Amino acid sequence: MHKETARLLELDREHSLVMHIGAILGWDQETYMPPKAIEERSSQLALLEGLAHQKAVNPEIGELLAALEAKSDLSEDEKAYVRVVRRDYDRETKLPEAFVTEYAKEASLSQAAWADAKKNNDFAAFKPHLSRMVELNKKRAHYLNPNAKPYDVLLDLFEPGSTQESVAAVFAKMKSYLVEILTRIRERPQIEDKCSGRRVDKHTQERISQYFMKVLGYERDRGRLDVSAHPFTTTLGADDVRITTRYVEDYFPSSLFSTIHESGHALYEMGIDPNPDYRGTKLAEAVSMAVHESQSRLWENIVGRSPAFWERHFPALSALLGEVGEGLDLESFVKSINRVSPSLIRTEADEVTYGLHVIARFELESALFDGSLNVEEVPEAWRAKYRELLGIEAPDDRQGCLQDVHWSMGAFGYFPSYALGNLYGAQFWAALKKEIPDVEARISGGDTSAVLAWLRKNVHVQGSRYTPGELVKKVTGQALDPVWFEKYLREKYSKIYGF
Amino acid sequence: MHKETARLLELDREHSLVMHIGAILGWDQETYMPPKAIEERSSQLALLEGLAHQKAVNPEIGELLAALEAKSDLSEDEKAYVRVVRRDYDRETKLPEAFVTEYAKEASLSQAAWADAKKNNDFAAFKPHLSRMVELNKKRAHYLNPNAKPYDVLLDLFEPGSTQESVAAVFAKMKSYLVEILTRIRERPQIEDKCSGRRVDKHTQERISQYFMKVLGYERDRGRLDVSAHPFTTTLGADDVRITTRYVEDYFPSSLFSTIHESGHALYEMGIDPNPDYRGTKLAEAVSMAVHESQSRLWENIVGRSPAFWERHFPALSALLGEVGEGLDLESFVKSINRVSPSLIRTEADEVTYGLHVIARFELESALFDGSLNVEEVPEAWRAKYRELLGIEAPDDRQGCLQDVHWSMGAFGYFPSYALGNLYGAQFWAALKKEIPDVEARISGGDTSAVLAWLRKNVHVQGSRYTPGELVKKVTGQALDPVWFEKYLREKYSKIYGF
Repeated sequence: MHKETARLLELDREHSLVMHIGAILGWDQETYMPPKAIEERSSQLALLEGLAHQKAVNPEIGELLAALEAKSDLSEDEKAYVRVVRRDYDRETKLPEAFVTEYAKEASLSQAAWADAKKNNDFAAFKPHLSRMVELNKKRAHYLNPNAKPYDVLLDLFEPGSTQESVAAVFAKMKSYLVEILTRIRERPQIEDKCSGRRVDKHTQERISQYFMKVLGYERDRGRLDVSAHPFTTTLGADDVRITTRYVEDYFPSSLFSTIHESGHALYEMGIDPNPDYRGTKLAEAVSMAVHESQSRLWENIVGRSPAFWERHFPALSALLGEVGEGLDLESFVKSINRVSPSLIRTEADEVTYGLHVIARFELESALFDGSLNVEEVPEAWRAKYRELLGIEAPDDRQGCLQDVHWSMGAFGYFPSYALGNLYGAQFWAALKKEIPDVEARISGGDTSAVLAWLRKNVHVQGSRYTPGELVKKVTGQALDPVWFEKYLREKYSKIYGF
Repeated sequence: MHKETARLLELDREHSLVMHIGAILGWDQETYMPPKAIEERSSQLALLEGLAHQKAVNPEIGELLAALEAKSDLSEDEKAYVRVVRRDYDRETKLPEAFVTEYAKEASLSQAAWADAKKNNDFAAFKPHLSRMVELNKKRAHYLNPNAKPYDVLLDLFEPGSTQESVAAVFAKMKSYLVEILTRIRERPQIEDKCSGRRVDKHTQERISQYFMKVLGYERDRGRLDVSAHPFTTTLGADDVRITTRYVEDYFPSSLFSTIHESGHALYEMGIDPNPDYRGTKLAEAVSMAVHESQSRLWENIVGRSPAFWERHFPALSALLGEVGEGLDLESFVKSINRVSPSLIRTEADEVTYGLHVIARFELESALFDGSLNVEEVPEAWRAKYRELLGIEAPDDRQGCLQDVHWSMGAFGYFPSYALGNLYGAQFWAALKKEIPDVEARISGGDTSAVLAWLRKNVHVQGSRYTPGELVKKVTGQALDPVWFEKYLREKYSKIYGF
């Protein structure tokens, strides 16, 4: 390793320490913080943000990068490391500090306005903030790359290497088969939901969550499970990856699958280890949002909602449910948790319709940034999109264009990751099955460690060594192709719905 | 307010924010942190310590102080503020950074060695570390004030204005009456402990704790109760003061009184508000360790173990205990929680013998620093001191000179605060009773708010406006006098033991 790399690692680790301290404050804020502490907490977080920014734009980083980029004898890991550090350094230094401060302030006001607007079903109150966030994001994109389309620049922040065109191409294919599969399902008799309405107390739901975290291989000495309004995974340190869930008392699958989902994210974070020398640095970070989502969705849906998984674990679930589980058998449970039904709320959508929710947002975002959609037209455009894609109509904006927090915080370009994650997940799964043909038998035999080991070796340990595009090629032998998700859905849902 | 004061407040608030962030990390470490996170956590804390130090020694503080000290028109609050900022600034700047780093490293090694030595009952293994901590503290004292006795300098860190001589004078009086009261109690029939051995589950103990926090006036929207190995109170922000307890399943008074004790600390922190302009600064900090301890001990013992308090709350306690409380009546409960019995472990000592534990440590510490006691003689000196003061013999060093963590971390001069707290508490209480003669009737009537209001007005809101010596004079009209504690103990225990 070159001495410049060693120094870069030092500077990077300090930045990472500051980010992890911020993550502790954020975790505490969502789980245990008393309500009145919020005022000072935001000052604490602002102080850390300022400190992180200082460390990120340290001119010494620029000098070290220039020195390393001039060398011809970098190792593969050094090359990859220089690439990710360069990417982040350029981003941080290209944004003027005054802009960053203004953005942070506006985003904070916008989020507060959105929360009120959602509560009051009042899009008009949110509209000026949405306009402002679109405008500021166009400005941000211009700072980062004045020669690219603004939406391409934003997409690249979450899914490096992706563009509006590449995402649109992938989503066009996905849309056509999702709509077709959904049509076939709608022609069949609907499955009865046998899980709803069973009152399972929080303590029992927590025991269920803990059981499944353990089954999946989540390391309890390197993390924990807590409760928050919205489930999340957060990395507070290389050996401190925590997840949260929430307990809906009359629908226990909510916490069960949110725990499995977040455990999927956590297993990824716990398994990142491209090279011990790079521990606690940018090389030891997840490659992208979509690849992260591939891990959570793979465990939640492909493994966690599979008949094989429940062949093994349904007795344990029944035992934990006790009396309240009476009348629920393996077959009706597996069918219930795989019920497909178009609905208005993305976060509660099934595997088939979920992608359509994301496409709706992607198409609206693209239009907002290429100028073909004005902010005031968003509510009506939303309704039209849901009619077109899901065949249902949002009765109000609260369940329509005001449902998600992302736009209020300016996270345009983020939504596609959610659906790309399903595509990556299915493609990884197909590659895994080729290598481990008896994986389903193993799962029904109680062994999910083969799945974890495969994901670890192929995806997790890599960290940020490759771009998402390079990674999927390396692991599966081809570029991202939505056909694998199609195959997975057809095979699974033709059995469940009998078409 | 002068513009220099305003700027000083800004710089101070930033320092305080960093300290509070450190407190969040510390709280998390003791309550929820997964075990493997400890390694990175210490790096996170070290980074914050470095940052806090940078902010504390900022030369601009020195310039602002000099400018303010040259003025003749400072307000009373400005004067007090300049005094405390000057004190801390001088301390921080007088210690060379290399010494601070060395000290932190040695203290960390020493604490680890102490934990092992205590576990293995092996004083010899701890001895070199104890020598080192004594030596480093002599060095520290020399840096801070080369013209004073080292132990005086250390005492002043915890109890500003106190000296070995002043503490010794106070303790001499206290020792004589504690020994005498203890002798009288030993001549009387011992009280039966009716609380031990009742198995109260953690959940019930938590509900008991929550009930009494509320009774005392602890603000739940500005703090929380959690579990840790050693109970503590920590301030994470002006509106975020958290306490912890631990649940001993076969001795429920342990968590009950530790919760009341920590609530007493928290009520103090929650009530500090010398002047809104000084919120989040050194003026809005507790005046000293001993005054802090006076608040926790006053609520725990003077209020919390009084017959008046239980006249009102015993029915609620019985209701919460349910079946497990059967056979426990008000009188036997109040007697049980006030049982006096010399024992080896300070933290579990009753009100009468507690001060003797502290005197033992004070006398040993003084001797270590004036050279009349060598480190290798500590175990035997400890045994002799316990024979002399408490009439009992430690069977091993684990229950003897290795029991407390303080010396291993170099906190010499800290112990006296624990007993001075009892003295301050009793003196405050006597003043309170003069102003509110029917305070006991109010307490038995369910109203402790008069006690809180009096403490708020006289002690809490003052923050660091006065030195401890000035405060006690202002509030009680006289200097600290151990006679008030004597009166309190005689009155209470002559009734309980009938002498």
